[in-house]
Amino acid sequence: MLENHPQPHEIKLENVLFALGNPLRLAILQSLAQRGEQSCNALRGEIAKSTMTHHWRVLRDSGVIWQRPVGRENLISLRRDCLDQRFPGLLDALLTAATQR
Amino acid sequence: MLENHPQPHEIKLENVLFALGNPLRLAILQSLAQRGEQSCNALRGEIAKSTMTHHWRVLRDSGVIWQRPVGRENLISLRRDCLDQRFPGLLDALLTAATQR
Repeated sequence: MLENHPQPHEIKLENVLFALGNPLRLAILQSLAQRGEQSCNALRGEIAKSTMTHHWRVLRDSGVIWQRPVGRENLISLRRDCLDQRFPGLLDALLTAATQR
Repeated sequence: MLENHPQPHEIKLENVLFALGNPLRLAILQSLAQRGEQSCNALRGEIAKSTMTHHWRVLRDSGVIWQRPVGRENLISLRRDCLDQRFPGLLDALLTAATQR
């Protein structure tokens, strides 16, 4: 496991909901679910790198994403297996709801 | 409809998730789902009234609860119908996940 990522049993519902209780982080969740692993730079688009550092930390610390360094890039992916194991059905319900907002 | 409560179509997923991304507010959700409408005083238990004013506002503004005055009390209930209509299946998935934390 990468450093600074909670283990599956350490993932807390309130932290996951807090992490996704933000329009930008919710959009990142949708992008990761639809397109799989992507680089930080690809995901952030026009948003400043320094702004995103905070968002990556919230998503990573809550257990929503993996963040792994590859060369000079950081790659981001959804921890779907961990989330599905910890809270069965929740991620799908959230993704369905996100399409309805 | 009571004042200061969003209409169903105004309920935003990110606001609902933010509202529930807190252990105390998540516990209130569970209590309302299990026991139905309750007074603010019954729900807050030992927690200071002033602390709870903030939490009621977050839950109300996000569309998670109804708050209605009856005599000198405020009664709180879950906006289950509105949430189910806006985001079908989400509330049940959240309540199931909440029992697993």
